[in-house]
Amino acid sequence: MKKRAYNFYAGPATLPLPALKIAQKELLDFNGTGMSLMELSHRSKGYAEVHTQASNLVRELMRIPDDFKILWLQGGASTQFYMIPLNLQKQGKPMEYVNTGAWSKKAIKEGKFYGDVKVVASSEDENFSYIPSDIKFSDNAAFAHITGNNTIYGTEYHEWPKVPDDVPLACDMSSNIMDKVIDSKKFGVIYAGAQKNIGPSGVTLVIVREDLFDRVPENTPTMQKWKTHMEKDSLFNTGPCWAIYMCKLSLDHLKGLGGVTAIEKINRKKAKILYDTIDKSNGFYKGHAKFGSRSLMNVTFNLKTPELEEKCVKEALGRGLVGLKGHRSVGGMRASIYNAMSIEGVQTLADFMKEFQENNQ
Amino acid sequence: MKKRAYNFYAGPATLPLPALKIAQKELLDFNGTGMSLMELSHRSKGYAEVHTQASNLVRELMRIPDDFKILWLQGGASTQFYMIPLNLQKQGKPMEYVNTGAWSKKAIKEGKFYGDVKVVASSEDENFSYIPSDIKFSDNAAFAHITGNNTIYGTEYHEWPKVPDDVPLACDMSSNIMDKVIDSKKFGVIYAGAQKNIGPSGVTLVIVREDLFDRVPENTPTMQKWKTHMEKDSLFNTGPCWAIYMCKLSLDHLKGLGGVTAIEKINRKKAKILYDTIDKSNGFYKGHAKFGSRSLMNVTFNLKTPELEEKCVKEALGRGLVGLKGHRSVGGMRASIYNAMSIEGVQTLADFMKEFQENNQ
Repeated sequence: MKKRAYNFYAGPATLPLPALKIAQKELLDFNGTGMSLMELSHRSKGYAEVHTQASNLVRELMRIPDDFKILWLQGGASTQFYMIPLNLQKQGKPMEYVNTGAWSKKAIKEGKFYGDVKVVASSEDENFSYIPSDIKFSDNAAFAHITGNNTIYGTEYHEWPKVPDDVPLACDMSSNIMDKVIDSKKFGVIYAGAQKNIGPSGVTLVIVREDLFDRVPENTPTMQKWKTHMEKDSLFNTGPCWAIYMCKLSLDHLKGLGGVTAIEKINRKKAKILYDTIDKSNGFYKGHAKFGSRSLMNVTFNLKTPELEEKCVKEALGRGLVGLKGHRSVGGMRASIYNAMSIEGVQTLADFMKEFQENNQ
Repeated sequence: MKKRAYNFYAGPATLPLPALKIAQKELLDFNGTGMSLMELSHRSKGYAEVHTQASNLVRELMRIPDDFKILWLQGGASTQFYMIPLNLQKQGKPMEYVNTGAWSKKAIKEGKFYGDVKVVASSEDENFSYIPSDIKFSDNAAFAHITGNNTIYGTEYHEWPKVPDDVPLACDMSSNIMDKVIDSKKFGVIYAGAQKNIGPSGVTLVIVREDLFDRVPENTPTMQKWKTHMEKDSLFNTGPCWAIYMCKLSLDHLKGLGGVTAIEKINRKKAKILYDTIDKSNGFYKGHAKFGSRSLMNVTFNLKTPELEEKCVKEALGRGLVGLKGHRSVGGMRASIYNAMSIEGVQTLADFMKEFQENNQ
């Protein structure tokens, strides 16, 4: 086997090695069934246990209150972009969004298919390098929507905006779910494509407060309603069993580390290593995100020229540091350092960055 | 490792053992990348090759003409139940369905959200034990829809109904895709949840004729349009990479066996072994499906009493023959013998059935 790469991809992304090893070991014979988990009926007892365990782990790790339901859906956050306004709309009430980048924009676009959309704050004026601080949602909003972390720009909410009492806050946490302790009660809906912080691609975690399932119009196709999936515990139809199983293994691992409290400490340490490297480089590396908005998960930065950036990405690759090219819409470099990235991996990158700077100053 | 079970689940179902072995071997290090396939960016070269190979295998094995596009989507056939009428509707034209069972009914139900639905033939009068032979679609239908194989009732089309020239035929082949050679040109849309005959759950294969992408209304949310996915070769957003990879491995294996022509012969042999066992049992076993409509994939039958059926399922399980309980809506027993089920497995089941009959007559 080749030496394991340090994988800085923005998603799908690195997974905990112990989880992968269990998956490998069990691949041909899950739990003494003589079958792969992929071959088990979604109605079988063997799979049912995995399904329940995955949901229970989410509830436990995020301290999700009992009046929230946990759904495992398909179609990515991109599908939730329309399921949110479809399922949360209220006749005559505006749907309010904060625009903090490409993913917010996509969410906003889909909202418009279902009613009146208001963008109440935006950081587009400075190329999405910050999280707006003066966010005010209306009292009569059907819902409020934010993007918890902006993978492309490397910004993240470190304080949640205030929301009027009766307005549910929906948050896309695809790239920062479980990166730090949050108060789940503040939200009406939390959703996340699994492939960045909790599992592989192919499943979307959607956490919805109970009272929000009944807003959806009656004449809505069955699969588009959260309620359909809630009523059958995400087994209305055959779900992405393998992806849910991998989430279960990855969350088991997180629990073993000490849960979200423990990983938050590690994440802060990892982010500090890289931001310190950038800040102490005398401008050789320039961070994209403003100080108070810096993401714990995606560290974005530029070098002096695109040529130098390309060289840096290439040399890093030669050292087994993979996936550091920035998103095409901002250029530069991006290190995605999700929960499964080790401090050692981040330190290796920081050491490389210092060395690269010395050699290319 | 426990002895491998003979897995007769209706889906998720048995997969080719050689494909599972490759997946296991590559799980920690895909193709020398030092990463699992699950950890690769969907935009990486490593994954892109898998994606393209999977599509190419479908095209080759099913002899799909160039004017069809191959999509890998999420949400199961249940999602296609609404995407079909949404994407194929034509103002003022009826959408026409044949009702051959539970899955047809679900498709019909979703059609009604998008316009005028006509059920032109049904076998509900005899508990869906046959495929109607007198199917006539209207010249002005927006599209015609059939369910190629009925997993629950064990019936299958062995001849395709005639469809007027300008009416595209949409077929749900979730449980019989690639079970026999078909003339793909007869169809406008072929779709299939992968988890029965070509892979694990979590991905849906959708094959659409090029001219059909432009019917969808403009004000349709992005993810609901086939066109969105077609234009980006199913990479508009992050797809279910692992499930597509498993399809690729399973189709590689099918190709190695000699493709659909070869598997059709094997499937006919397998089905004959079981139907012969039923027919020669002097009524101890009673097949549900009528002769001309019998499925190659799901063999459904009853014993004299529910108690005897339960005993039979239980004793079979003791022999490593798993998943033989019939669907709750018809009861009895069901042996799902998809492409990945071996002749040996089917013969073992037939031998057990004869023995059980002798001991319980």
